[in-house]
Amino acid sequence: MKLYCFGESGNAYKCALALEMADLEWEPIHVDFFKGEARSPEYRAINEMGEVPVLIDGDTTLTQSGVILDYISSKTGKLGGRSAAERREVLRWLFWDNHKLSTQIGTTRFLMNFLAADKRPEGVIPFLQGRLKAAYTVLNDHLANRNWVAGEAVTIADLSCCGYLYYPEPYGFDRADWPNIDHWLDRIAALPGWKHPYDLMQRALPAATA
Amino acid sequence: MKLYCFGESGNAYKCALALEMADLEWEPIHVDFFKGEARSPEYRAINEMGEVPVLIDGDTTLTQSGVILDYISSKTGKLGGRSAAERREVLRWLFWDNHKLSTQIGTTRFLMNFLAADKRPEGVIPFLQGRLKAAYTVLNDHLANRNWVAGEAVTIADLSCCGYLYYPEPYGFDRADWPNIDHWLDRIAALPGWKHPYDLMQRALPAATA
Repeated sequence: MKLYCFGESGNAYKCALALEMADLEWEPIHVDFFKGEARSPEYRAINEMGEVPVLIDGDTTLTQSGVILDYISSKTGKLGGRSAAERREVLRWLFWDNHKLSTQIGTTRFLMNFLAADKRPEGVIPFLQGRLKAAYTVLNDHLANRNWVAGEAVTIADLSCCGYLYYPEPYGFDRADWPNIDHWLDRIAALPGWKHPYDLMQRALPAATA
Repeated sequence: MKLYCFGESGNAYKCALALEMADLEWEPIHVDFFKGEARSPEYRAINEMGEVPVLIDGDTTLTQSGVILDYISSKTGKLGGRSAAERREVLRWLFWDNHKLSTQIGTTRFLMNFLAADKRPEGVIPFLQGRLKAAYTVLNDHLANRNWVAGEAVTIADLSCCGYLYYPEPYGFDRADWPNIDHWLDRIAALPGWKHPYDLMQRALPAATA
């Protein structure tokens, strides 16, 4: 399988991590995102949404991290729910993550780290951070009495929700403020196959610091 | 079935519309959203995410519009894809809508219409409108040579993507600017069972104009 990706994309990381943890053979295809490659006509022919990641498996082309995660789980029988109710619970957190968590972190982290300071739109970062605080609260409360986001073992719901939370660039999230999230991230990182995003995928930008 | 909802919620509308179009018996339970009911401890006991909609079907409680739409389609055999590939395509557009379209419209429309003018955060509305323009472009281009978002007939992917697009309150979207979206909205509105959001669910705020 091939995954169109770049290191800074948390949405691509979710899929790269699932491929590793499901023990599948895969190869990254680097997308030069910050030079606009994902918006080029050539890339739009692969994904009209102009986004990373894209997974190619033979004749099957898939986009949207939630769809790719569901495909990996269905294909391997790993990282999914064990009943219809558990699968719906997994899907619920995949949607919540897309709707409330990863989307907002992706934008906030982009504005704070990958855009020149003089191009940052006034007022947007604190607004998004306020919305994110509400999302961190929901996730931290949810993890108060449980080890995993859905069900009794790690699932693609965990891999989706953690997608942006291991990155080192600042975006207003300090693990120490959210102890249940902090411990859960440690649990995921202790699993066989776990790797840091920058060890799985080539960065599109050079690291700012050593 | 019971749907926790209020008229202004496009996410609730998606589900109410699917219930109508799948010809199911359902009853709305009004949530007084703008008075904070969705964030109350009583409501959080129903949905820890503090969000509308919630669908109750006997012992089953479901949240996230994407999960509810998938449940309605699976239960009735209506409004879904006809093959595994079509179902993945439906899911892809559900995720895209949650990630790029409805989330951003919901926030923009809230800031422009349901929040006092002196509380609107500076700079946020034009920023979100810029991101939305990119999303409208993707959807409008996708609909250039097809009648429905996924497959050969209407599916829950259409009902998800249209969720906020029939509302009268201004948020920077003019149907005339997006002719393929405009015609597609007319096609959906011509289907049996279609109703306007304010004819399906009680508003939480009085209408600003007659």
